Amino acid sequence: MNAVVIISGGMDSVTLAYYLKYEHDEIEDWTYLSFDYGQRHHKELQYAAFHANKLGANHYTISLKPVAMLLARSGSVLVDYSVPVPEGHYAEESMKSTVVPNRNSIMLSIAVGVAVAQEAEFVAAGMHAGDHFIYPDCRPEFVEAFNTAEQLGNQGFWPGRIIAPFVEITKTDIVRIGTGLNVPYEHTWSCYKGEAVHCGKCGTCVERKEAFEQAGVKDPTTYE
Amino acid sequence: MNAVVIISGGMDSVTLAYYLKYEHDEIEDWTYLSFDYGQRHHKELQYAAFHANKLGANHYTISLKPVAMLLARSGSVLVDYSVPVPEGHYAEESMKSTVVPNRNSIMLSIAVGVAVAQEAEFVAAGMHAGDHFIYPDCRPEFVEAFNTAEQLGNQGFWPGRIIAPFVEITKTDIVRIGTGLNVPYEHTWSCYKGEAVHCGKCGTCVERKEAFEQAGVKDPTTYE
Repeated sequence: MNAVVIISGGMDSVTLAYYLKYEHDEIEDWTYLSFDYGQRHHKELQYAAFHANKLGANHYTISLKPVAMLLARSGSVLVDYSVPVPEGHYAEESMKSTVVPNRNSIMLSIAVGVAVAQEAEFVAAGMHAGDHFIYPDCRPEFVEAFNTAEQLGNQGFWPGRIIAPFVEITKTDIVRIGTGLNVPYEHTWSCYKGEAVHCGKCGTCVERKEAFEQAGVKDPTTYE
Repeated sequence: MNAVVIISGGMDSVTLAYYLKYEHDEIEDWTYLSFDYGQRHHKELQYAAFHANKLGANHYTISLKPVAMLLARSGSVLVDYSVPVPEGHYAEESMKSTVVPNRNSIMLSIAVGVAVAQEAEFVAAGMHAGDHFIYPDCRPEFVEAFNTAEQLGNQGFWPGRIIAPFVEITKTDIVRIGTGLNVPYEHTWSCYKGEAVHCGKCGTCVERKEAFEQAGVKDPTTYE
């Protein structure tokens, strides 16, 4: 039995990998998929590879650069480098510029294609409740509707399903779960900027700090 | 106003392009997307470019080769060149080997991403009733469910929708519509093999011949 996990190298998807490994000992082969959609930096992808190696998973990084060129028109800071990375809390309007058009749908579609090809039990992704406000493609209703569509689109070819175990919990809960599973968070990357250390100011850094604080867990991250 | 059309260079999507151009004169800019997912040959992509040029559309061919490597494991003849192309009618069991895992979902997800980035009115794709038997991702219930998922996944970012105007009609009907619109079918490609002329024997050639016959339209195709 095998399964496919979408992993970025950030805290959420890395915790997901450890969580699934712990929860699903019936899965013998893990396939981790990372995506290069033309993001500003690739620091997190190195961490994805690190954890794949640690957990004995196959790891593929899929280049979607030809797609990114077309998506970059949208003024998303993650793919359009002319837009400055906004600072401050996720809940602010400016964070909308961190949306990559249809990102989760694109990644999930490809992951399901791989899962059909490998007859995988499931495709797992790490979206969580803290993402719901800004990112519509992280909401449970999207995941559910998308899973329904994929079941219909692969009827007779795939008995699997899409799972998002963290979709109803917060990043703080994720840190708690991961700490219980000894996830080495110093080997994860959140910051939208790709400097030597986390900037501590962009939306995802602010969220990262908050999650450790609220979980009452020592934050191993070096911030600028 | 602009719109995105998925076009392969085959009869169905080429007819779709002419049909949409005729039906939607409110659309000023057309973006045609073709996909190179590692298929055996690229003859049809040249025809896609030909019609884009004729109809004044922007045309992008998106390479999904890194994805194709992973999908090729499935034993689909279209991406796994070690499997011979089956001959005979589509309705036969062997034609299942012509399924590319989750192809329409992958192409539609990317097309919707582009549509969100461009604030396009719609994404159009050319699946038709004759595909339903073999390909679950060509069925109306898939298109509808997928559209629902994409609406949810892009809530607040995309007022558009996915349309599949031919999803309930047959290839014969498509030939009738296209003939009325003067579609130059000699500049379309169906054959799964990529030889100098259409083989006349593979599932899609058999289907092509039948569509012209049943529509009572002279078939301009040269078969081997």
